[in-house]
Amino acid sequence: MARASVPDPSDFLAVDADLSAEERDIRDAVRDYAAAELSPRIAEWYESNTLPRDIAKGLGSLGLLGMHLEGYGCAGTNATSYGLACRELEAVDSGLRSFVSVQGSLAMFAIHRWGSEEHKQTWLPRMATGDALGCFGLTEADAGSDPGSMRTRARRAGSGPDADWVLDGSKMWITNGTLADVAVVWAQTDPDAGSKGIRGFVVPTDTPGFTANEVKHKLSLRASLTAELVLEGVRLPADAAFPEVRGLKGPLSCLNEARYGILWGAVGAARACYESALAYSIDREQFGQPIAGFQLTQRKLADMVVAVNQAGLTASRIGRLKDAEALHPAQVSFGKMANVRAALDVARTARTVLGGNGITLEYPVFRHMTNLETVLTYEGTEEMHALSIGQAVTGIAAFR
Amino acid sequence: MARASVPDPSDFLAVDADLSAEERDIRDAVRDYAAAELSPRIAEWYESNTLPRDIAKGLGSLGLLGMHLEGYGCAGTNATSYGLACRELEAVDSGLRSFVSVQGSLAMFAIHRWGSEEHKQTWLPRMATGDALGCFGLTEADAGSDPGSMRTRARRAGSGPDADWVLDGSKMWITNGTLADVAVVWAQTDPDAGSKGIRGFVVPTDTPGFTANEVKHKLSLRASLTAELVLEGVRLPADAAFPEVRGLKGPLSCLNEARYGILWGAVGAARACYESALAYSIDREQFGQPIAGFQLTQRKLADMVVAVNQAGLTASRIGRLKDAEALHPAQVSFGKMANVRAALDVARTARTVLGGNGITLEYPVFRHMTNLETVLTYEGTEEMHALSIGQAVTGIAAFR
Amino acid sequence: MARASVPDPSDFLAVDADLSAEERDIRDAVRDYAAAELSPRIAEWYESNTLPRDIAKGLGSLGLLGMHLEGYGCAGTNATSYGLACRELEAVDSGLRSFVSVQGSLAMFAIHRWGSEEHKQTWLPRMATGDALGCFGLTEADAGSDPGSMRTRARRAGSGPDADWVLDGSKMWITNGTLADVAVVWAQTDPDAGSKGIRGFVVPTDTPGFTANEVKHKLSLRASLTAELVLEGVRLPADAAFPEVRGLKGPLSCLNEARYGILWGAVGAARACYESALAYSIDREQFGQPIAGFQLTQRKLADMVVAVNQAGLTASRIGRLKDAEALHPAQVSFGKMANVRAALDVARTARTVLGGNGITLEYPVFRHMTNLETVLTYEGTEEMHALSIGQAVTGIAAFR
Amino acid sequence: MARASVPDPSDFLAVDADLSAEERDIRDAVRDYAAAELSPRIAEWYESNTLPRDIAKGLGSLGLLGMHLEGYGCAGTNATSYGLACRELEAVDSGLRSFVSVQGSLAMFAIHRWGSEEHKQTWLPRMATGDALGCFGLTEADAGSDPGSMRTRARRAGSGPDADWVLDGSKMWITNGTLADVAVVWAQTDPDAGSKGIRGFVVPTDTPGFTANEVKHKLSLRASLTAELVLEGVRLPADAAFPEVRGLKGPLSCLNEARYGILWGAVGAARACYESALAYSIDREQFGQPIAGFQLTQRKLADMVVAVNQAGLTASRIGRLKDAEALHPAQVSFGKMANVRAALDVARTARTVLGGNGITLEYPVFRHMTNLETVLTYEGTEEMHALSIGQAVTGIAAFR
Repeated sequence: MARASVPDPSDFLAVDADLSAEERDIRDAVRDYAAAELSPRIAEWYESNTLPRDIAKGLGSLGLLGMHLEGYGCAGTNATSYGLACRELEAVDSGLRSFVSVQGSLAMFAIHRWGSEEHKQTWLPRMATGDALGCFGLTEADAGSDPGSMRTRARRAGSGPDADWVLDGSKMWITNGTLADVAVVWAQTDPDAGSKGIRGFVVPTDTPGFTANEVKHKLSLRASLTAELVLEGVRLPADAAFPEVRGLKGPLSCLNEARYGILWGAVGAARACYESALAYSIDREQFGQPIAGFQLTQRKLADMVVAVNQAGLTASRIGRLKDAEALHPAQVSFGKMANVRAALDVARTARTVLGGNGITLEYPVFRHMTNLETVLTYEGTEEMHALSIGQAVTGIAAFR
Repeated sequence: MARASVPDPSDFLAVDADLSAEERDIRDAVRDYAAAELSPRIAEWYESNTLPRDIAKGLGSLGLLGMHLEGYGCAGTNATSYGLACRELEAVDSGLRSFVSVQGSLAMFAIHRWGSEEHKQTWLPRMATGDALGCFGLTEADAGSDPGSMRTRARRAGSGPDADWVLDGSKMWITNGTLADVAVVWAQTDPDAGSKGIRGFVVPTDTPGFTANEVKHKLSLRASLTAELVLEGVRLPADAAFPEVRGLKGPLSCLNEARYGILWGAVGAARACYESALAYSIDREQFGQPIAGFQLTQRKLADMVVAVNQAGLTASRIGRLKDAEALHPAQVSFGKMANVRAALDVARTARTVLGGNGITLEYPVFRHMTNLETVLTYEGTEEMHALSIGQAVTGIAAFR
Repeated sequence: MARASVPDPSDFLAVDADLSAEERDIRDAVRDYAAAELSPRIAEWYESNTLPRDIAKGLGSLGLLGMHLEGYGCAGTNATSYGLACRELEAVDSGLRSFVSVQGSLAMFAIHRWGSEEHKQTWLPRMATGDALGCFGLTEADAGSDPGSMRTRARRAGSGPDADWVLDGSKMWITNGTLADVAVVWAQTDPDAGSKGIRGFVVPTDTPGFTANEVKHKLSLRASLTAELVLEGVRLPADAAFPEVRGLKGPLSCLNEARYGILWGAVGAARACYESALAYSIDREQFGQPIAGFQLTQRKLADMVVAVNQAGLTASRIGRLKDAEALHPAQVSFGKMANVRAALDVARTARTVLGGNGITLEYPVFRHMTNLETVLTYEGTEEMHALSIGQAVTGIAAFR
Repeated sequence: MARASVPDPSDFLAVDADLSAEERDIRDAVRDYAAAELSPRIAEWYESNTLPRDIAKGLGSLGLLGMHLEGYGCAGTNATSYGLACRELEAVDSGLRSFVSVQGSLAMFAIHRWGSEEHKQTWLPRMATGDALGCFGLTEADAGSDPGSMRTRARRAGSGPDADWVLDGSKMWITNGTLADVAVVWAQTDPDAGSKGIRGFVVPTDTPGFTANEVKHKLSLRASLTAELVLEGVRLPADAAFPEVRGLKGPLSCLNEARYGILWGAVGAARACYESALAYSIDREQFGQPIAGFQLTQRKLADMVVAVNQAGLTASRIGRLKDAEALHPAQVSFGKMANVRAALDVARTARTVLGGNGITLEYPVFRHMTNLETVLTYEGTEEMHALSIGQAVTGIAAFR
C-alpha cells in the first residue's frame, strides 16, 4: 500500500492534479504574471482607488480578455482554463477579476453572442487585446435584483426599422464605466410590453449625451472603477441594437457567464486569505510559541481548509460541466452562492488570525474581505441565488 | 449552445454521471436492496433498539462485507464502489452503514492487513458471507480520543514467544459487540513502553473470560447494537496476536478505513434528510400554498442543496484519491469532519421543515439527526479531525 | 474599590440577585421538589414514553398549576415567579414544563380569561389542585402555523342561542390529550365568515363522540403525552361556548401565555445542558488532563455561558415587563425565538462535550436536545416568530 | 389587562425605560451632540483618516472625558451613564468611542487609579476638559495577547530610589499616540523577574527620545489615529513611575475599564447598523414592494433585533453590576466578547440588506463593519475573552 504524501496545504484534495497540461500552463502563466505585475502594486491601487488602464494590455497579451470566446482574436480556451485565470487573478484582488469579467464575460460575450457580425468585427479584436474597453449597463439605481423594472428607455427617433434609436436613462454600479470605449446598454423599447421589450445596444462612449460619473466613497473593490452611466438623448443608428434577442434572456445570458467567472474567482480570494493566515500563524509567536500551535487557531485553519477546498472542488466540477456544455444556470447559482459565501467566511476568519495586523493593507486579507462584500452582492445576491436554487428543486418561484 | 437540463434535485452537480458502469450497478444494487429489505423495517428496528443478525447474510450476499478487500472471498471492488455502498446504506440509517463499517473496515480489514495467513483463512471467508461477525475493540471508557492511554493489558502466561497471552481489561462503545463471533482487541503488552507496546489480538468471543454487555438507554444509533466488552483473564494462544504491527499504527490504519466509509455514508444520510424535507415542503400546505413556495423554506432547501452536494463532491474526490492509492489520512480527516458536519446541519434544517411531523419516526429525518450525533463523535470527534488537519498544514500537533 | 467575587458559573451575570425574597422562595421550592421527585425518575419516564398522572397532585400542591392566575384556588403569583417555576421544571425536562404550560397557561388561562363564571367555578379549583386535568385543542394536522385554516366545525343542533352545539373535526399534537378531563376546543362556527367565526368550547372529555388517541413513535418530548383528539358529533349545551370572544384573538391570547412560560423554560433546559457539560469536562480526562483544560472545550463552554445567561437575562426582562402589564406579543415572540434557539444551540454544543457518553440517557443533555426540537416547533415555529418580530418593526406582514 | 404598545424598534425590550432621569439626560445630551457635531462629519473623517483634535474640547465640555472618575475636574457619573455615553458615541463611529475610551478609561483611569497625587493634579483636570490628551502604551508589535512578554525596558540611570528612569522600546497600535500630550507607558523594570517587574510611567510626549509614528494604510477605525510609539533613551525623573502597582495587575485594571466602555459602545454600533438596514428596507422597493416585505429580509431584521437588544440588555446588566461595585473581570469579558461579536454579526447582516448601496460611505453600515474588526481584536481578542470565561467557570487556565 503506497503511502500518500502529506497534502499540499493550498490544494488539500489535489484538485489541480486533474488539470490538463495546457490548463496547468495557463494557470501558471496567469499566476506568474500576477505575481510579477499585479501583486506588488495592488495595495497602492486599492488605497488610491485606481486601476490603471494599461493593465488591459498586459491582460490582453496573456489572452485573458474574452478568453473563452472563439474567433475575433479571442483565445478560445475551454471554460476550465478561463476559470483558472479568474481564480489566479482574484487571488490578487477581486477588482482584477472583475475587470476581466466585465470585459470578457459581459461586454465581449454580449457582443459575441448577440451582436451583429459588424458589431463583432468592430469591437472584439480590439477588446481582446485590451486596446478597447467595454462595460455593461444593466443595473439601475432602482433596479437591482429585479432588472425587469429598469427605467432606461430606447425609442425610435422616427418610424420604420431604419429609424435611429434614442436612449434615455441611467445605469448604476457599472464596472469600468469611466474607462470604457464601448458600453453594452440594455433598455426597455416598449414600456407597455413588459420585459419582452428589453433590447441591448452597442453604445460608443463618445456618443453625445453619454456620460460616465465615477462612484466615489467606496469601501470595497477599490482597485476597480465603478460608474454611473447617464444617457440623455443618446442617438444611435438603427443597427446599434442587437438584432435578435429580446427580453431579459439577453442580459441574463451574460450574467450567467460572469457568475461563472466569479465562482472560480472566489476560490482564489479564499485561498489567498487562508494562505496569508496560515503563514502568519506559523510566524507569529505569543505565549512562547507560534499561534499555529494553539487549538483555537488550528480550528480556524481547519475550517478554512475545508471551505477553500470545497469551493475549489465546486468550481472544478462546474467547470467540467461547462466544458461539456451541460451547465445549467441553477448550477451556476449554486457555485456563485456557495463559493462567495465560503470566501467571505474564510476572509473573516483569516482576519481574526492576523489580529491587529489584519486591519491594514500590509496583509491582503482585509482588502479581500471588503472586496467580497461587493462580490456577494453583484451578479445576483446570495438571496437571489438561493431562490434560484429553490426554484430549481421545487419548481416554484418565490422571488416576489 | 446546448441548453442544459434542470439539475437533478438529488444530484445537483451530476456527480454520479462520472461513475463507471460497474460502479453504477453496485450503487443501484445496494439502493434496490435497501429499498426492498431495509427501509421498510428500519423505523421498527430503531424504536425497539434491535438489529437482526440475519441482515448480515443479505449484506454478505451482495458482497458488501469486506467489499474493498482482495481475496478470501471478498468482493475486491474499488474504493469508490465501497463508498457508494456506504452512501446508499446510510441513506437508510447510519446503523446499517456502521454494521458494514465495523465488519468490513475494522474487523475484516484488521485481519486482512495485519493478521497471519491463518487468521485470514479462518475468518475472512465466513465474515465476507456474513456467517461470522466481527467487532473491533479499541476504545475504552476512559480512553476515547486518546487511545494510547488504554488500560487493557496483554501479558504472557509464561516465558518465551510461544507462551499464551492473557488479556484483562474492558472496551466500550463496541458496535456489534454482542453479535460478534470474533473480536479484534487492542491491548498494551508492555506498560512501560508507551504506545509502542500496543498489539492486536484475534479473540473468539466464546473464549472463557470474554463477555459482551449491551449498552442500554441509547438515544442515537438505535438500529445498531453497542456493547461493553469485558476481558477477565482471557487466555489466548501465542499466535492470536497480529504478528508484526506494534503501536497505534495498527488500530489507526483501521480507523482510517472506517472513516473513509463514514465520509461517504454521511452523504447518504444528508441526502435522505434533504429529500424528505423537499418532498414534504412540496406536499405540505399552509396559508393556502405549499410551504416550498415560502422564501424561508427555499432558503433552507438551497442551503441543504449546497451542503448535500458539496459533501457528495468531497466523497467522490476522496474516493478517486483512494482508488489511486494517493489518499492521506489528513484528507480522510477532512472528509469525515466536513461531511458529518454537513450531514448533521442538513438533518437539523430538514427537521425544521417538517414542523411537528418532524419529531416522530414517521419521517426519517429525526432518526438520522439523532444517529449523526454518534457519527460525529465516533471514529474521531470533529475536534480531533480539525486538529489533524491543523497538524497537516502547520506541522504542529496541538492535541495536548 | 471592592473586589467582586468570581461569577457563579450557573448565573454568570447574577440575574437571580434581583429576585424578591418571595420569588427566590418559589424558585427554591420548585428546584427542591424537582430534585427530589422529578429528576430521579425522568429518564425512565422518557425512555418508556410515560408521564404518571399523579405528578399533577404534586405540582398542584406546590401551587404551580394556573400559578399566575387570580382566584379560584390559583396561587396568583406574579409573572416572574411563574417564569422561575417554568425554568426550574424545564431544567429537569421540557415535558414537565409542557405539562404545567398546558394546564395553566392554555387550558386554565383560557377558562379564566374567556370562560363564563360557571366554567371557572366548575373547573379552575379542581385544575389548580391537579384533581382535574385540561388540554387545549387548537392545532390540526393540516393547520399548524396557520390556525385560521382549521377545519373543525361547531354547528347549532337547532335554531336560536339556546340550541346545543355539535362539534366535528380533529385536533393534532395535543399535549395531555389522553390524560385530560376537560378540553378547550376551538372550532369554526361559520365556515363562510373566516377566522372571525372561531369560538372556544369547554368540552368534558367523557362527552360521547370525543376520543383521544395517543401519538406514538415520538423521538422527542417523550416524558409528555401527546394525542390526536377526534370529535365526532360531540354534542354540548349552548353554554359550553366561551361567551364573548370571537376569532383567533381567543386562542392567540392563550398561546401568548404559553410562550411566556416557554421562554423561561428554555433557560432551564439550556442551563441544565451547560451544567452537565461543564461538570463532565472537569471530570473527564484525556491526554492526561481534564478536557476542560483544552482550548476547544473552553471555547464551547464560553459560548454556552453567553447563550445561557443572555437567555436568562432576556427571560428576566420579559418577566418584569409582564409584571408591569407592559408586555407586547412581539416581545414574547422575541423571547420564544431567541431563548429556544439558544437552548437548542447550547444542548447541541453540550452534547459534543460529552462525547460518546452524550448519546445515552445517563446524562440529561441528549434528552434535552431532542425535547427542544419540539419546543422549537410548537407554540409558533422559529420562522413564525421571526416574521412576527419583522412585522412589529416594519409594519408589514410577510406570513403569506 | 392593559394592552401593551408595539415595541420601539430600536429598544425592543424597553431597556432604557429603567434609566434614571439623570441617566436619560446624559444619554440625550450625548445623542444630541453627536447628531449635531459628529454624525455630519464622520464619513469625511473616516475617508481621510483623520480625527480633528478639537473634538476633544467638545467631548470635554460634555463631561465625557474621564466621565466616571471622581474629582480632579471629572464628571463622576455612575458607570451606567458612562456606558450610555459610549453607546451613543459608538452609534456614530467606533473611532469616537475609542477616543473617549483611551482618554478616560485608559490614560486618565491609569493616572487616577495608580498615579501619585502629583500625577493626578498635573494631568487629570486638563485631560477632563480635553486640553490635554493622553494615550496608553501597553501593546507591542510582538506582544499582543501576551503583554507579559513585552520588551520595553525601564532601567535606572543610577542607583537608589531617586535615580532617573530610562525607557527603551516601542509600543504598537496606540490610539491617539500622535495626538497625545502624555503617554502612560508600561515597561519591564527587571528582565529577570517576570511580569512582576512591570511598572507604569507617566511620560510627557515632548520628552527627548519619545516619538510617535502614525500607522498608515488602515482599513478600519480610520476616524481614529493609531501610532507606533518609539522610546529611545527616554529619561524620566524617579517619580514618573506609578508609585505602588507592580506587574500586569496595573495595565489589566485599565483594560478592564476600557472593555467596559467597549461592551456598551458595541451596542451603539449594532443599533446604528440595524436602524440603517431597517430604514433602507422600508424605503427600498424591488419586485414592486418594499424589500422589508420579503421573508428573507424580515428574517434578517428579526435576527438583528435579537442581537441588538440582547447586547443592550447585557450592557445594562453589567452596568448595574459595576454601579454596585460587584463587577468581576470575567463578566466584562462576557460583555466584551458577546457584544462585539453581536455587533459584528449585525453589521454584516445589515450590509447585505443594503445591497450595492451598502459598500459606500453614503450609509454608515460598511464603516461600522470595518471598525468592528478592530474592536473585535483590541482590548482582548474574542479568543482571549473566551478563555477568560472558560477559566472563570472551570478554574483552569488554557491560554498557553
